[in-house]
Amino acid sequence: MLEHGGDIYTEGLLKGKKLIDFSSNINPLGVPESFKNHIGEALENMEMYPDIKYRTLKNYIIEYIEFSKNYFRSSRESDLNFEEQKMSEENIVLGNGAAEVIDLAVSCFKRVSLIVPSFIEYEKSALKWKCDINYSLLDENMSYNYDDIFLKIKESDALIIANPNNPNGTIIDKDKFKEIMDYCEKSNKKIIIDEAFIEFTGKRGCSLLKETEKYKCLFIIKALTKFYAMPGIRFGYGVTSDKDLIKKIEEKQNPWNVNCFAEVAAKYSLKDEEYINNSLNWIETEREFMLSELKKIDFIEKVYDTYGNFVLCKLKKTNCDELYKLCLKQGIVIRKCDNFKGLDKNYTRFAIKNRRHNEIFIETLKDLNL
Amino acid sequence: MLEHGGDIYTEGLLKGKKLIDFSSNINPLGVPESFKNHIGEALENMEMYPDIKYRTLKNYIIEYIEFSKNYFRSSRESDLNFEEQKMSEENIVLGNGAAEVIDLAVSCFKRVSLIVPSFIEYEKSALKWKCDINYSLLDENMSYNYDDIFLKIKESDALIIANPNNPNGTIIDKDKFKEIMDYCEKSNKKIIIDEAFIEFTGKRGCSLLKETEKYKCLFIIKALTKFYAMPGIRFGYGVTSDKDLIKKIEEKQNPWNVNCFAEVAAKYSLKDEEYINNSLNWIETEREFMLSELKKIDFIEKVYDTYGNFVLCKLKKTNCDELYKLCLKQGIVIRKCDNFKGLDKNYTRFAIKNRRHNEIFIETLKDLNL
Repeated sequence: MLEHGGDIYTEGLLKGKKLIDFSSNINPLGVPESFKNHIGEALENMEMYPDIKYRTLKNYIIEYIEFSKNYFRSSRESDLNFEEQKMSEENIVLGNGAAEVIDLAVSCFKRVSLIVPSFIEYEKSALKWKCDINYSLLDENMSYNYDDIFLKIKESDALIIANPNNPNGTIIDKDKFKEIMDYCEKSNKKIIIDEAFIEFTGKRGCSLLKETEKYKCLFIIKALTKFYAMPGIRFGYGVTSDKDLIKKIEEKQNPWNVNCFAEVAAKYSLKDEEYINNSLNWIETEREFMLSELKKIDFIEKVYDTYGNFVLCKLKKTNCDELYKLCLKQGIVIRKCDNFKGLDKNYTRFAIKNRRHNEIFIETLKDLNL
Repeated sequence: MLEHGGDIYTEGLLKGKKLIDFSSNINPLGVPESFKNHIGEALENMEMYPDIKYRTLKNYIIEYIEFSKNYFRSSRESDLNFEEQKMSEENIVLGNGAAEVIDLAVSCFKRVSLIVPSFIEYEKSALKWKCDINYSLLDENMSYNYDDIFLKIKESDALIIANPNNPNGTIIDKDKFKEIMDYCEKSNKKIIIDEAFIEFTGKRGCSLLKETEKYKCLFIIKALTKFYAMPGIRFGYGVTSDKDLIKKIEEKQNPWNVNCFAEVAAKYSLKDEEYINNSLNWIETEREFMLSELKKIDFIEKVYDTYGNFVLCKLKKTNCDELYKLCLKQGIVIRKCDNFKGLDKNYTRFAIKNRRHNEIFIETLKDLNL
């Protein structure tokens, strides 16, 4: 079995079958036209080595950080009454996908705290780099257990946490997290926050990007993968006020680790407001639709609330293996969750897609008569 | 100072100046039309995660290996009278540029032999992974010193060698190298051969790709970067009969390390015979032109023979810093060679470009009146 969602190759493409992929969590609006229309620029740049310092690309990211702070602004301005600070090139590290940034960030620490369940690459990296791992379990509602996280970070050099978390979509509660951030800031411990899915949370101010200006302990990882629907482009980045951490990661990187397409994508897509607005309208409507429809399915015991573009469900009367096979027969791939630490064959994750696909999916589930 | 050629950003693009880049060694025929014409396929694939096993892409590489063995065939068939073996997916490892493959291959060994001077990334990787390094110097003609290499490999677990070598363009003499290969094969030592520039050697059968079928000790690294003029795409690969070495490297890699553009580029460009033939015609003509013209420049003491698309020169009456500045004033960037171990400020490297640029360059040099 492959470890991730998105393996539509083994069962589908390589056998010439077209499948609907509910296993990987990509914005169904697809690659922004604003990028496609300028692909020629990338073709021109392709004949040159990229700037080994990626100065232009880093500046597109800096512009997007400023844009994000306002566009996806916090509803609680009082939390943010500290001096404005603009990030510079030395605050940004670029990666061949967020995967590279995560892996190299983890490699900087001897003892790490991980959340369970969460994206399995954090643990794989920690094991690869021979870190000692302290696990903090989500509570029974699949929310963060802040008291436990606090205990675990005391025994660690860094915490790796996602906002929102994959596979369930819970977010960090800033009020409850403040004590942890204050402690880490004082104790020189690091908090690596994977915000790969943050844009899907909308304008509710869920991101901790702005907090990086006040808290040097924060290191936020983002990507074009999910919200901008470009998993194939392989581009992610990390942001922190701690320039030493950036240096430490960059020293571990190979030269020219980001391709020339990423620069053009960042230039045109990141601040494409039409695309962003359409995406936010879509996710708000479809998240509600999917949550309410899934609650009506009688072999689903629990539908977990989500801020992301995916829904974790606990099954009854069936298991993820059986459901996977039945869905595949109907041309749909879902994500089994039994390889997430802390979950078992009772759990499965579904992506939220466009209305037509969501309806086909819900109808398929209803017709299974499990 | 930046460590590599190709930094036309610091002096050029970022200041709005257009420079002619004689510092990086890219085929001036540019990105093959066969790829550009099919860029739409990549844009479609971009919305999906790449196949985590890269099965289709690996098969394009396997086809190209077969094609190369015949197209760039050895003139001495007698060397190759061993049983034909076709490579399979387990014989290929893919990288985000050859840089990743080199780095991870080096990371597999405790003691490595390096050639001096050669591409500086080999040494940087060896230092990063804390390898013990044995250096073998090129002889006075900048050819490999096979006796010395033999001595050095005895004290090492692996030899890293380029074919042709950068910055001078010497190639491996198969007759003289045979003893080393036989010894490594018996003693379970590895030979990592960087053939990033091999296609520029033409149809003279310089590659050791076919020898990988007989010698499990060989690990050959190639890329689309140089001959196919795609440094921006970031795609390289390694080939060996030793499936265990492939596994060992892949275990160190992050998932989805190659972007979706590489697959389309490999599909259409690798066997684009029109492009290949035009490129071979160009390099044969222009290599001769540059070698003979450079020999007429009176501040060049020695022009080293080359099988690549670049020429190493030893200067007299000037040094590479002065020449760099003078050329830059005329809108031309050259590669200073004083950061190559074993070379100093007397050495500089020039790319071979198209006739128009080569003529401008030669005229510029003549007019310097040094």
